[in-house]
Amino acid sequence: MKDREDVIRRLKTAEGHLRGVQRMVEEDAYCIDIIRQIQAIQSALNKISTLILEKHLNSCLIAAVQGEDPAERERVLHEIVDVFEAASRV
Amino acid sequence: MKDREDVIRRLKTAEGHLRGVQRMVEEDAYCIDIIRQIQAIQSALNKISTLILEKHLNSCLIAAVQGEDPAERERVLHEIVDVFEAASRV
Amino acid sequence: MKDREDVIRRLKTAEGHLRGVQRMVEEDAYCIDIIRQIQAIQSALNKISTLILEKHLNSCLIAAVQGEDPAERERVLHEIVDVFEAASRV
Amino acid sequence: MKDREDVIRRLKTAEGHLRGVQRMVEEDAYCIDIIRQIQAIQSALNKISTLILEKHLNSCLIAAVQGEDPAERERVLHEIVDVFEAASRV
Repeated sequence: MKDREDVIRRLKTAEGHLRGVQRMVEEDAYCIDIIRQIQAIQSALNKISTLILEKHLNSCLIAAVQGEDPAERERVLHEIVDVFEAASRV
Repeated sequence: MKDREDVIRRLKTAEGHLRGVQRMVEEDAYCIDIIRQIQAIQSALNKISTLILEKHLNSCLIAAVQGEDPAERERVLHEIVDVFEAASRV
Repeated sequence: MKDREDVIRRLKTAEGHLRGVQRMVEEDAYCIDIIRQIQAIQSALNKISTLILEKHLNSCLIAAVQGEDPAERERVLHEIVDVFEAASRV
Repeated sequence: MKDREDVIRRLKTAEGHLRGVQRMVEEDAYCIDIIRQIQAIQSALNKISTLILEKHLNSCLIAAVQGEDPAERERVLHEIVDVFEAASRV
């Protein structure tokens, strides 16, 4: 699946970036430069979460909202509220 | 409507809090204390956004996803992705 | 003081913006539009906190770090770490 | 150095966590669970940035503020304002 491959590619990039940060720490790079690299990784992770949420809304959410089970629908909607609230915090 | 009254009450509280911060600045309060009060207001605003999103998912989103118009559904889902991405940033 | 006036002006703008959001809620505006306005207020508050921190670093922090009291210096540095950690969360 | 080893250990943990997220995506895990794991990694990265900033304030910043070069002092203070502003956004 195309979306999944894009997400995995981005996760691998973030992992490589994170290993780069480890090297910076080991080589005693300038603290502020290290913090900036970590912030860049966090921006990349925000983007990845957004892509995953987009996929989720266009599949699971539609299935749940069009489905017959009100408890399942409520559960799925509540989870989205939940990750939104968490996203505001991290 | 009960939810709306709760949201308005929280917005009024945040507004009072913000006026309190203005007084702190005018009276030359300690900078760090001012920053902490601003951060508390931002937490309160996160909570308010979450409540509004919850209401939105349980009304507009359900209507759009169960509705007949695929363009409208897509629009509503895309908006949610959008505010999620923005929430990760503010 | 010039900086202080700028901060107060920005706080008043944010307060007016917040009252605008109350009106939107009262008039039953579209949820997503309300959330976006709240996010804009949060961005403005981020900017205000940053201005206050800048002023703090250029006055209190310099005084504490150049001063004679190691406990005071440690306290001031620790507070900055603290609001940085909180800023990452709100 | 003790702090550096702590930071490297935390970075390695985050890297392992990120590989776990890749596996979740490959094995088609539930989207919301994946997003929650990414948010947990971001919290861990916030903590790491905070530790690095703490170290920076207690070494480079003190040296710059107590040093003779006003341009260097200004540069170091400005960088802190800068990463604080960015932290509010990621």
